This record gives sequence, structure tokens and C-alpha cells, in this order.
Amino acid sequence: MIAHEWVLERTPQGLPDPADFSLRGWTVPDLDEGELLVANRFISVDAGVRDRLSRDSYGPRTPVGGVIDGFTVGEVIASRNPRFAVGDRVTAGGGWRTHYVTSGKGQLVLDAEIFTPPIPDSTAIGVLGVSGLTAYFGLTRVARIWPGETVLVSSAAGTVGATAGQIARINGCRVVGIAGGDDRCRYVTEVLGFDACLDRHDLDHSIGDVCPEGVDVYFDNVGGQLADSALLAMNRGGRILVAGQVSEYNAAEPVGIRHLREVVERRVRIEGMVVWDFLPDYRSAMETLAGWIREGRLTYTETIVEGFERAPELFCNLFTHAGLGRSLVRL
Amino acid sequence: MIAHEWVLERTPQGLPDPADFSLRGWTVPDLDEGELLVANRFISVDAGVRDRLSRDSYGPRTPVGGVIDGFTVGEVIASRNPRFAVGDRVTAGGGWRTHYVTSGKGQLVLDAEIFTPPIPDSTAIGVLGVSGLTAYFGLTRVARIWPGETVLVSSAAGTVGATAGQIARINGCRVVGIAGGDDRCRYVTEVLGFDACLDRHDLDHSIGDVCPEGVDVYFDNVGGQLADSALLAMNRGGRILVAGQVSEYNAAEPVGIRHLREVVERRVRIEGMVVWDFLPDYRSAMETLAGWIREGRLTYTETIVEGFERAPELFCNLFTHAGLGRSLVRL
Repeated sequence: MIAHEWVLERTPQGLPDPADFSLRGWTVPDLDEGELLVANRFISVDAGVRDRLSRDSYGPRTPVGGVIDGFTVGEVIASRNPRFAVGDRVTAGGGWRTHYVTSGKGQLVLDAEIFTPPIPDSTAIGVLGVSGLTAYFGLTRVARIWPGETVLVSSAAGTVGATAGQIARINGCRVVGIAGGDDRCRYVTEVLGFDACLDRHDLDHSIGDVCPEGVDVYFDNVGGQLADSALLAMNRGGRILVAGQVSEYNAAEPVGIRHLREVVERRVRIEGMVVWDFLPDYRSAMETLAGWIREGRLTYTETIVEGFERAPELFCNLFTHAGLGRSLVRL
Repeated sequence: MIAHEWVLERTPQGLPDPADFSLRGWTVPDLDEGELLVANRFISVDAGVRDRLSRDSYGPRTPVGGVIDGFTVGEVIASRNPRFAVGDRVTAGGGWRTHYVTSGKGQLVLDAEIFTPPIPDSTAIGVLGVSGLTAYFGLTRVARIWPGETVLVSSAAGTVGATAGQIARINGCRVVGIAGGDDRCRYVTEVLGFDACLDRHDLDHSIGDVCPEGVDVYFDNVGGQLADSALLAMNRGGRILVAGQVSEYNAAEPVGIRHLREVVERRVRIEGMVVWDFLPDYRSAMETLAGWIREGRLTYTETIVEGFERAPELFCNLFTHAGLGRSLVRL
């Protein structure tokens, strides 16, 4: 049987281009004892992966010729491992592959109690996957939101930001989003229920206008100048949670924040996080999030394209005209 | 009786100049009921004051014509307040004045159990004042050092940095300083007992060389490019304590830090602090620090100039060729 995978053809310079990737076929080998074969059904394209195409980051750099990282939901189609049965649905960081062979390490079998209608398997790599869990642990464990606080969320129309804002709202916070363009801002307020949304293309002085009582928590998915603007609106004792730095991933030189002396005067805490530090609590967080979805309090959007061949195109679009919510490829 | 005070003649542009200040005489009035008259004996010159000559900062901006801020140790020479007796030694933010009249608010009477030989009154605005307390609370309450950690300290030859490094060493940390020039570096290692000291004029790649196990805590008095270099040496879970931003005070445009994405990957926490948030615990911290001085475990240096007229000169020198340790004027 021939399987396929997307590999790095050349290291992107600045914005990635579909020509930076190439498709490679490989023959699926016979399984050894203890192995299983997974056929992917959904693959995520992640902005954070861009960083690792050029450099070591929260994971090691992807070399030229290496398979591109992505989160996956797949089905076990052959197994010589007693812990996995044919038909099991598993999620993992399986990469941009149609199939993969694994010893089972790092493969999480989807819990049928959680992944049952109305909750589709694809959410295992979206609102119930690392995106939603980053939002959940970021707000509850790192920034530690309180009811009544004002929470500012960048990339509010993306899955991490969308989920973060809704979690903050569910916990009694006032929530203001930042998103790019009228359509995305309308989505953030009308569909996601944020109290307000700012267009990031038109941000001068407006954080203070929309947050007259200041910002207590800034959920930063973006970095760069936006973080600087947020810092100037922070209340004393405010927290900036740094969960991503999308604006930096394509930059030759990092931008960073300039107003660091505000950190002293305002007693601001800036803290970075990576979701897998919270692995032991994934299960209970997923149950909490799934409960909110069932109750109609938490919503999500998936932008799904059909066909494995379209993964590079979808990935490159993330940086120029991303779809709403989580971007997934269905195989 | 005629007293004198230094006021702001014009707002400094960039580095301050003695001509930015002017001396003004005033007649000491008769005391009202409840008031006391203090004759200053020591006045501090503080780099942090520079920031407030141009803008609101951790305190309000000093207007043209306003008295320059400074910490003071003085003696009560007249009192119509029953809480203060003639001869009491008090510390306060009395400003650059020979004398001042006060209702007693904000006046801390020096505790004779602490300020007794070998500990001079001047330490009340140095190692036992806000400088030493910033070091103490910064490390123990904000950065929360642990034995065995590597602590990097900027401005290591200044009082805050010198005290911070010694507190970290007393608590079992490995301590590396950053200071400007050979003489100051030698002082940091030979007198203060830091494990190593880097010259800030020659810093390329050398933090990693001197901290082969990485940096767990960076005590930042400086900001700017130095904070960026430190960030690139931080261990996972490292803390950057931002207690001052001297490099920014004279800058027209803030510099800030660029490598913010490292904050994500390394799970770094950057936290600002101002010492007066810890006011209720000043007394016990002063006792702890005084105990270490008596035991010979904590040392300090004061650069004292004689004569009230020299305050502006001493202040301006802070930014170009500061003396070792705390810079004080003796009246």
C-alpha cells in the first residue's frame, strides 16, 4: 500500500509559500509486534508550526526533507498492539501524512463519552484539543482570571482566542477581542458573544476607549506591536499571558515589546506557557469544555478543506487570509 | 531661619545636566500644632528619579519649579507633634531639601535596635532602605529564588544589585553579576563575593559561557538590550524580575525586549515590582538584613559626598560614572 506525506522542500523565507513543500510517497511496511497503522481523517494546519520550519522552537526545527508537523485524528486500520483495536479513533501529532505506523506512544484514544454527537471527532484537534486547552489552562492556571475582570484577547477569531474569550465570559469576565477586519470582528461579537471587538488594522488609542476600566488580563497570541499597545492599557497587577507570537514567526528580526518600564510601574506579570505542561489535567479540562458545548455556552467554528493535497495551501493562507476558527484538512 | 532646596529648572533632554537644577531659599515658618521640623543629614540621589523628571512614572512627574525627590535621613529639631521628640532620627522621602516641615505622615522613626553600631543611620536610605528592600522582596516574594538556582543580576555594583546578589548567595544560589568596567566587576566578585561578573560593555554570547547551566532568575535593574540577552539564556520556568529600567530613563524612545517568543518556549515569567507594595513587611525584612550585616554575611558600600550644593552633580554622575554602591549627600 502506498501512503503519502508532505515534507519540507526548502526553508521558507518570510511568508511560507506552497512551493516550500513537496509530496512524497512511501510504502507502508508490514507491522511489527506492538505496532499499529493509523489512517488520518483530519489534519490541522497550525501557525505555530511556521516558527519551527526556520528554527528550534517549542519543538525541534523541521529539517528540509522532514515531514511537516500537524495534529491529527485518525482511525486504527491495522493493529498488532493489544492496547489498540481496529476501528479505534486516535488523536496525536501524526504530521501531514495520510497514514502512519506507531508503537502507540503519544496516541490518545478518543473517549466515547466526550466525542459523541453533537461533538465531532475533529474537535479533538480544535476546541477540545491543544487550541482549546491552551485557552483553558492559560486563563485558569497561568493568568488566573477572576469574575469582573476585563480580559483582552488577540486573534479572537482563531480557535485559541475564540475559546479563550468565551471561557472568560463564562467565568464572569468582560471580554474584548482583537481581530482583523469587519467580518471577523462581527463574528467575534455576534457569534462568540464577546462584549466588544477591535479591528487590529485600526487600533490607535482604541484599547483604552473600549476598556475604560483598563485591562486586567491580556491573552496574547500575536506578540509584537499589539502586545505593546496592550501593555499601555494594563491595570496594576495585570497579567499578560503569552501563548503564541504569530506576528513574530515570519519576521527576520523579532519585534518584541518596547514599553517594558510599564511592567514596573503597573506591576504587570508577563508569562509564557506551552499547553503540554498541563497534560495530566487534559481529561478533566476536555470534560469541562465539552459540557459547555453541550449546554450551548461555548461555540466553535471549523474551516475544513477536503483533500490531503490542499494542506500547504491552507497552511500558507493562515498568515494572509485565514478562515474562521480552526483550519483543518479532511482526508 | 533660611532653608534651601533644589528644584527643577528645566526638563532634562536625554542625560540630565547640573544646569537642569536650581537652588532656592525659603524661610522656615513657625510650626503649627501637630507639625515637626526635620533637618536632613543624608539625602539619596536615585536613578529612578530621572524618569519622573520627564513623565509620570511610579510616582507623579516633577514639574519645573518642583523640589527633586530623594530619600532622606534627618533629625527632628523642633516638634509640636507628641509622636516625635527633638533628637529623633527619621527617614522619609524628604526630597532635596536642607529642612522640611511635616505633619509626621510618612515619617519613619529609626529603630534604635536596628540602627546601632556598626549600622549607621545612612543605611536607612541604602542597604536597609528601599534599595535593599527592593532586592529582598524582589528575590523572596516575586522571583522566589531557590537554593541551587543561578541568579543573574544587572547593575551589580549598585546598591540594589549588590544587595540582591548577596541575598541570593546567602540563600544558596549561584550568582553572576553584570557591571560596567573592570573595576566594578572586580568589586562585585572580590568584595561582594559574586561567583562571577560580566562586563556589560563586552557581553556578546558571554552570559551563556558564565552560566553553563542557564539562568533561573534575572534581576533586571536595567532593561533594554541587556534584558534581551538575558532572555536568551533563561532556563525553562525562569523568572525575570523587573525592578528598574535605568537604560530607558534617558531614552527618547523606549527600547524594550525583542525576543518575546522565547517567553513562550521557555515558560518565562516577567514580573514588575515596586517595593512599597511590601510596606507591612519592611520591619521584619530590615531586621533580617541588619542581622546579615552584623554576622558579616552582607556588605555594602556608600559613596558619600559632603555638601548639599553637590546633589545635582552627584545625581548626573549616576548615568555616566557612578560611584560604588549607594550615592548619598551628607549635609
